[in-house]
Amino acid sequence: MDVSPPYTTVIFTSHLADAKGYAETAAAMEALAAQQPGYLGIESARGPDGFGITVSYWADDASARAWKQVAEHQAAQEEGVRRFYSDYRVRVARVERAYTCPRPISP
Amino acid sequence: MDVSPPYTTVIFTSHLADAKGYAETAAAMEALAAQQPGYLGIESARGPDGFGITVSYWADDASARAWKQVAEHQAAQEEGVRRFYSDYRVRVARVERAYTCPRPISP
Repeated sequence: MDVSPPYTTVIFTSHLADAKGYAETAAAMEALAAQQPGYLGIESARGPDGFGITVSYWADDASARAWKQVAEHQAAQEEGVRRFYSDYRVRVARVERAYTCPRPISP
Repeated sequence: MDVSPPYTTVIFTSHLADAKGYAETAAAMEALAAQQPGYLGIESARGPDGFGITVSYWADDASARAWKQVAEHQAAQEEGVRRFYSDYRVRVARVERAYTCPRPISP
């Protein structure tokens, strides 16, 4: 995800409680997110303790908000609350600068 | 990390190339970060494929910048570049809103 800032990021942290069907739902949501206007990218990591962080990137706040409202995503969010996660947190943030190694994003 | 926005977050994504001594260095850096002015919290997840996300939280941009400059942290960053990571990326962002389940951060 090599877009230069500024852009919007949604940081989703969660503890996975029930993994049954989770991988399929998560993959379907990643594929659906990629079809939304303003989508820039998504990255995820989950450790053996069940704690995970997913960071998605959006052109602006409006596209991040719109994704939250997509019906199929809302159904997955409801299943997340009801079953997948013991807890989760969402933070919406504006990326102001970025740097990378080995190669720079901006000159 | 229950502080209400706004605050600053540093999103660090990396692929771990050489894990030897990494857990010790990462734990030492987390302990050192916690002693810095403006530190609010840190969360990490790394999957079996070696891809990891660490998110640290800071009162403001100045405290996030100051942490980057702490000498012992700089030495760890250099070792990260030289040995631990095949690649990494750092994004600095301003958290504008947050919500959580089951309980809200803000009333």
